[in-house]
Amino acid sequence: MAIPNPAPTMKDVAKEAGVALGTVSKVINGIPVGESYRLKVEAAIEKLNYRVNSYAKGLKKNKTFIIAVMVPNLINPFFCKLVNCINRSLSQRGYRMLLCATDYDPEQEQAYVIMAEQQKVDGIICLSYNPNLQVTEGLPLISIDRYFGSQIPCVASDNYGGGALAVRKLVENGCKSLAFLRVGSKLTNEPNKRKDGFINACENLDIPYVLKIIDDGVPHSEFWNFLREHLHDGKLDFDGIFCVTDSLAHLTRQALREMGLRVPEDVQIIGFDGIRRFGDMEYTCSTIVQPVEEMAEACVNMVLDKGQSQVPSLVCLPVTYAYGGTTRK
Amino acid sequence: MAIPNPAPTMKDVAKEAGVALGTVSKVINGIPVGESYRLKVEAAIEKLNYRVNSYAKGLKKNKTFIIAVMVPNLINPFFCKLVNCINRSLSQRGYRMLLCATDYDPEQEQAYVIMAEQQKVDGIICLSYNPNLQVTEGLPLISIDRYFGSQIPCVASDNYGGGALAVRKLVENGCKSLAFLRVGSKLTNEPNKRKDGFINACENLDIPYVLKIIDDGVPHSEFWNFLREHLHDGKLDFDGIFCVTDSLAHLTRQALREMGLRVPEDVQIIGFDGIRRFGDMEYTCSTIVQPVEEMAEACVNMVLDKGQSQVPSLVCLPVTYAYGGTTRK
Repeated sequence: MAIPNPAPTMKDVAKEAGVALGTVSKVINGIPVGESYRLKVEAAIEKLNYRVNSYAKGLKKNKTFIIAVMVPNLINPFFCKLVNCINRSLSQRGYRMLLCATDYDPEQEQAYVIMAEQQKVDGIICLSYNPNLQVTEGLPLISIDRYFGSQIPCVASDNYGGGALAVRKLVENGCKSLAFLRVGSKLTNEPNKRKDGFINACENLDIPYVLKIIDDGVPHSEFWNFLREHLHDGKLDFDGIFCVTDSLAHLTRQALREMGLRVPEDVQIIGFDGIRRFGDMEYTCSTIVQPVEEMAEACVNMVLDKGQSQVPSLVCLPVTYAYGGTTRK
Repeated sequence: MAIPNPAPTMKDVAKEAGVALGTVSKVINGIPVGESYRLKVEAAIEKLNYRVNSYAKGLKKNKTFIIAVMVPNLINPFFCKLVNCINRSLSQRGYRMLLCATDYDPEQEQAYVIMAEQQKVDGIICLSYNPNLQVTEGLPLISIDRYFGSQIPCVASDNYGGGALAVRKLVENGCKSLAFLRVGSKLTNEPNKRKDGFINACENLDIPYVLKIIDDGVPHSEFWNFLREHLHDGKLDFDGIFCVTDSLAHLTRQALREMGLRVPEDVQIIGFDGIRRFGDMEYTCSTIVQPVEEMAEACVNMVLDKGQSQVPSLVCLPVTYAYGGTTRK
């Protein structure tokens, strides 16, 4: 598995080709030299299996071909798929990914941005929960889901449209009364719009609805208390539930089962994200699917393009509905 | 969110401190200077919020504080958790992670190793399926699960012990006859030992067993045909199944349900990996849990330590059993 010879240097190439070091440098950097010199250098590079030191090259060109990517963790399947797709999009363009999972810690997020600046990355793509994140002007930065203001472009799903789509699908499936369950964040972020889309669609379709929103960190038992309060003679006051994430939909389904209610016969549930079991099997529930591949492509295109053309401050990408067993169809 | 002033340089620090550039350089690089000079430089660094250019520093010290990490993808929850833990272990030691998902493509894996060499990373941690992977000697490389030979240290779970533990747990739960289902790889790799551990434990405990091993890429319907062949009068010939992964255990449970068999009442199943729903909820099945955190720690310790002390060529870390609903307990 190991190649025994030490890595050849640019000097070795020059010696092998019988040309000056400067000539080798010109060829490597695409600066025109006489045809015969170029051929000699290329043959020597080939023979010695010489590999350009990108690190030094990056320093010279002030480019590293590295993009820093920051997500809270690689435990949540949505973050994992997002990073997987960003990696593929970067890789297709010859860029590498310096990845950091920050555990939702604002200090770690800030430290990582400082580190990324020190490493001279060509840009940052971040999914941050830190509203006070400070970034040096000039370093291209794209935010996912969190809108920091017009100078930082943000890529997100059409969360508003997704909330409305969930209502339409529940109503199409026969639901007459709806509930929305959400673990809330006090930050201004795009996923907050799921609620607005839900409310607006209920109002437009004249469907009665209730909201149950709990703060981050509050135990989920608050939700189950809410459900029990709405349970009368073995029947819930509503027959359709929109959950802000697929993981909450999963927990809600379990709680309803424990209350003796059947899903989807008695209550139908739609989640949000589009999480598949084991990453690539069936959907974990009926769900509003985030267009993760398109989001990754948009982030990569925008971070590499920034500074060169006008980048919109918010890009919302269309979501779709997928059946996953918790609705009638 | 943006800091408007351009990043200060070492020259700015020298000017602010009223000292020579070389003095600033010495302080930054920990080389002794007179106390009063050191204090002046430190005050200027503090005042200007000067940040060391790690990129240039790395070039000088021939160290980048970056470890390249290579896994097939960030879709499989096991790979995700592994990368999450490696990231944390590296981060605690002041190192960053250059991550690549290779889609099981040997060409991409080789290209990534070459890239990592060019970027002058301080080492590579890889989970590769490429038996012919070539690495320049001298670059610390740690392999996960694949044993490439004595010169490349390998970190893995105790797969053999895990296979035996699955047998013991099924027998403890009352199983009298067992089956082992596996999607096989022709490569020499550590997970192959799950089978050896299974067979050895069955032989020792005098438990009858059957094996069904299919090659990578063969449709899973081969397994379901095998199960149907062993189904007589609504009863399977065996009452315990050990599946080589949790995802196979999940599919097997679904197939058995479709055949009218109850899990765990009629058949008990144990998987391998320790995958939790949505990354951090309940186990997806009763399972042999890989010690992912300990594996990540071992990889990081070994890749950073390599060359300094004697590193063993294979480190096997202990697995544990976890109940997850597909066994009686």
